[in-house]
Amino acid sequence: MAKRQISIQPMDAASFASFGDVLTLKSKPDKMINQDMCGRHHDLAKLDFTDGQAGISLFDAVPRQLPYTLDMMERHPLGSQAFIPLHEHSFLVIVASDMGGKPGEPLAFLTAPRTGINIYKNTWHGVLTPLQAPGMFAVIDRIGYGKNLEEYWLDEEYIIQN
Amino acid sequence: MAKRQISIQPMDAASFASFGDVLTLKSKPDKMINQDMCGRHHDLAKLDFTDGQAGISLFDAVPRQLPYTLDMMERHPLGSQAFIPLHEHSFLVIVASDMGGKPGEPLAFLTAPRTGINIYKNTWHGVLTPLQAPGMFAVIDRIGYGKNLEEYWLDEEYIIQN
Repeated sequence: MAKRQISIQPMDAASFASFGDVLTLKSKPDKMINQDMCGRHHDLAKLDFTDGQAGISLFDAVPRQLPYTLDMMERHPLGSQAFIPLHEHSFLVIVASDMGGKPGEPLAFLTAPRTGINIYKNTWHGVLTPLQAPGMFAVIDRIGYGKNLEEYWLDEEYIIQN
Repeated sequence: MAKRQISIQPMDAASFASFGDVLTLKSKPDKMINQDMCGRHHDLAKLDFTDGQAGISLFDAVPRQLPYTLDMMERHPLGSQAFIPLHEHSFLVIVASDMGGKPGEPLAFLTAPRTGINIYKNTWHGVLTPLQAPGMFAVIDRIGYGKNLEEYWLDEEYIIQN
């Protein structure tokens, strides 16, 4: 049987809304600061941590290639997780709604350049998948104790492609 | 009288330590995740907020040119402020120790590529100064009410240059 295939779609805030925030400039800054030399686009992410607090870490990930084989999804029951690319490249983001404790049919998004994301607490997602080097991201997630990772290995893989 | 001049030095964690954190990869990740495809460099910033909480905003700043004229420094009495470049370019960071409620002699640093910074609470610093486009940064700072900005206009300007 042919493997299940998922097509990558451009990320936009509306289609990503039930999974997380798209961290991109608004059409107009909330405020001009620094003697009008800088626009502040204010408070774009719903940070949400249980029994812990926000911290900044760096993730250094090996770039992946398309088509990409998705065999596992994960979620973090105790906190949201934001990814800020330390580069100008698009990256692949795979998410799924929860279907009775397991990920449902995944959706695959390609971010616009210079765009971060914030994945909501307990939302199924694929691992970090840059598509080119450097695979470096700042990650704003929960710093705290306790088990904050649930992995679900798929019965059958998905092939993610353009 | 000639204006006061400050030479830019490369940023390193030791010389920046009293002003903030340098957000760069450690020599070795704290943990390998995602089936060993990603290194996690854990909890690199001392986030510190009074009567508020962490949020993620975007700053879109006009790039500056060298030599740069420093005429004002500012500090945020209620919270730390981290800057994550959404690009791979170095940027200019100016900081100063406090001298009785005013900034002392400034220091000017050039970050390494793909490097963020976290400026500690109530630390004197210059405004965001990218040196090339795009001047886009994710900023992790305090979301809350109250006056969190103190500006100090210098009696005499400094010229910042290589």
